Amino acid sequence: MSAQDDEQSDDTPTQVRLSKLPSGVPDESTWRFTHDPTPEPADGEVTLRIEWLSIDPAMVGWITPKKSYIEAVPEGEVMRAFGLGRVVASRSPRLSVGDYAFGFTGVQTEATMNAMMLRPIDPSIAPLEKQMGGLGMTGFTAYFGLLDLGQPKEGETVVVSAAAGAVGSVAVQVAKIHGCRVVGVAGGPEKCAYVKDELGADVVVDYKNDNVPEALATATPKGVDVYFDNVGGEVLDVTLMLLNRHARIVLCGAVSQYTNPGGVMQGPSNYLQITTQSAKLFGFTMRDYLHRVPEALQDLSKWMDEGRLTTREHILEGIECFPSAVKMIFAGENRGKLLIRI
Amino acid sequence: MSAQDDEQSDDTPTQVRLSKLPSGVPDESTWRFTHDPTPEPADGEVTLRIEWLSIDPAMVGWITPKKSYIEAVPEGEVMRAFGLGRVVASRSPRLSVGDYAFGFTGVQTEATMNAMMLRPIDPSIAPLEKQMGGLGMTGFTAYFGLLDLGQPKEGETVVVSAAAGAVGSVAVQVAKIHGCRVVGVAGGPEKCAYVKDELGADVVVDYKNDNVPEALATATPKGVDVYFDNVGGEVLDVTLMLLNRHARIVLCGAVSQYTNPGGVMQGPSNYLQITTQSAKLFGFTMRDYLHRVPEALQDLSKWMDEGRLTTREHILEGIECFPSAVKMIFAGENRGKLLIRI
Repeated sequence: MSAQDDEQSDDTPTQVRLSKLPSGVPDESTWRFTHDPTPEPADGEVTLRIEWLSIDPAMVGWITPKKSYIEAVPEGEVMRAFGLGRVVASRSPRLSVGDYAFGFTGVQTEATMNAMMLRPIDPSIAPLEKQMGGLGMTGFTAYFGLLDLGQPKEGETVVVSAAAGAVGSVAVQVAKIHGCRVVGVAGGPEKCAYVKDELGADVVVDYKNDNVPEALATATPKGVDVYFDNVGGEVLDVTLMLLNRHARIVLCGAVSQYTNPGGVMQGPSNYLQITTQSAKLFGFTMRDYLHRVPEALQDLSKWMDEGRLTTREHILEGIECFPSAVKMIFAGENRGKLLIRI
Repeated sequence: MSAQDDEQSDDTPTQVRLSKLPSGVPDESTWRFTHDPTPEPADGEVTLRIEWLSIDPAMVGWITPKKSYIEAVPEGEVMRAFGLGRVVASRSPRLSVGDYAFGFTGVQTEATMNAMMLRPIDPSIAPLEKQMGGLGMTGFTAYFGLLDLGQPKEGETVVVSAAAGAVGSVAVQVAKIHGCRVVGVAGGPEKCAYVKDELGADVVVDYKNDNVPEALATATPKGVDVYFDNVGGEVLDVTLMLLNRHARIVLCGAVSQYTNPGGVMQGPSNYLQITTQSAKLFGFTMRDYLHRVPEALQDLSKWMDEGRLTTREHILEGIECFPSAVKMIFAGENRGKLLIRI
C-alpha cells in the first residue's frame, strides 16, 4: 500500500470543494476532492463525523453567482450541504461526544464548526435517514409552506408539482390529511403511480406524457385553491389560468428552470392572473421557520407513526458519488429524498 | 336640419358598443356608435344621465378573450366602463331623481340599471371629477393596495411604477404620508418632474431615458421593501433583484405588457427572488375592498383637504372621443386620471 493510499484510508478526512462555478449543469469539473486534516475544535466548537449528506435542488442556487438568500459558495471552498453526524470532539456545553447533530456541515466526512450552528438530533425519534428527509428540512418545508402559507381548507383543491419529490411527496400527504382534493403533477408512469397509489393523491398529471393544460383543467373541475410549486415553467403557467379567487401559490422552487441556458429563467407569463383572481404568491425558505421546527416535527412524526405519512429515501453510498448525485437530482432520476451515506 | 341630425341631438342617447374584439391595440374599428333609446326603469332600477366616464387601463382586459376577473365584453354590447351620473328616473327607494351615483354604467350617455349596482355619490364631498379619480376607484385602489397589502412601515423604501399615473400618483403620496422613502418610476422628464416636485417622491427613475437597472439600484441603497407595480416588464424584473427579505409586491397591473403581440405577456424571469427573499406578491382588485370604501374615502379626503394629497385629471370632452381616449391611455399620453365629460 503506497503512502498516498494510506492517506486516503477510512480515517482520512475528505472534502468536496467547489472548483469552478459551473455555467450550466454542474459536472465533474465543477468539483475537486481534497484530504485536508480536520481542524481541532476551538472554544464553542465541535467536530462532527458526518454520516449523512443531503443532496438538494437548492444546491444549484448555491453555486450560481446571483443574489440568492445566501451567498454563492466561493470557489475553492467546501461545497455547502446539510449534513448529519456524530460529535467526536467537543468544546461546547451544547453538544457532547456521541451526540448527533444536523446543520450546514458541507460536503465532507468531518466538520469542525460552532455548536450554535447545529441542531441536536434525537436518534430515538426516527431513523436518521428519515430525519434527513420527511422528518427533516424537506418535510418541514412542505409542512410550513403548505399549512402556514397555503392555508388549505377542507374540500379545497390543492395542486402539488414535483409531487413525487422529497418536498412534494410530503405536501401531497399533508394536504390529504387536511381533507383536500389533491392533484399531483409528476413525470413518468412510475412516479405518477407512486403519487396516486402510495401518497394518495386524488388525481395525477404526468407532465411528460399528458397534455398538461388539458389534463390539469380536467383534474381541477372546481379550480385551484392552493398551488404548491416546486417546478415553475409550463405547469406554473397553466395552473395560474386555473386559479380560483383568493387562491394561494406557495413558491418553493423552480426546478424546471434552474438549468436554462445562460441561467435565464422563464417567468410565468400568466402572472397577472394573480391580480385578476386576487390571489397571493408566497416565497419562503426554512430560515423563516427554524424557530417553529418542533411543531412540525411533532405533527409529522405523529402522522408517520399513525401510518398516514410515508417518505422514501434514495440512498447513495460514499462521498465519492457526490458529483453524480448532483447530476441525478437535476435529471429527476432520484426516487425520494436523495441522501449520501458516508 | 335633417331627421338624422335631429336624432343625434343632445337629447338622443348614444352608446359605444364593442364591434369586434381587437387583436392588439384597440382602434376605431373596434367600436361602433349607436343611438338606441334608453329603456324605462323596471322595478328596482333607475335611469342615469351620465356626466363622467372613466377611461382605465383595465379596459383592455375587458376586451381580451381570456379568463380575467370578469368576462370579456361580448361583441355588440355596450363597452364596459365606470361612469358617474345623475338619476333622471327612479323605481328604487335607494336613489331618487337628482341623486348622483357611480358604477359600471358602460360607455353611453344614459344607462338604466339596477340601483343595487350603483354607489351613491355625495357631490358635497369633492368635485365630481375628483370622485372619479383620487377620491374614486383609482384612489381607493392605491390606498388599499399600498396600505392593506403592501403594509409599508416608516422608513421603509417603497417603489411605485407608473408613478405619474392615476393610481401610482396616489400611491406615491400615501407612501410619503406614511413616512416612507419613495422611489417613483415614470417615463420622460415632464412626468418625472411631476412625480418628484408635485407628488414628493424622494427619487425618480425615468424608464425612458435612464439605465433602469443602474438607476433603480442607485435609488434604493437600502433595498426595496414594498413594490407597487402597475407596469410589469423590465421594471418588475429589475425590482425583484433589489428586494429585501420579507418584501411585499402589490401587483396592480402590467400596462407595459397589455399590447404585446399575440397578447403574450412577458413573465418576470427573476420571480424566484420572491422565494429567496421570503417575499409576498399580492394580487387584488377593488372588488375585494368595496365594503371598505368609506374608510379610504375618509382618509383620502382628509389628506386632500390638508393639502397633502393632490390629484390631476385629464379631461376630454364628449363621448365621441372614446376611441382616441383608449388609444391615449395605452400610449401613456394622458396626464393624470383620464376622464370623459359628457
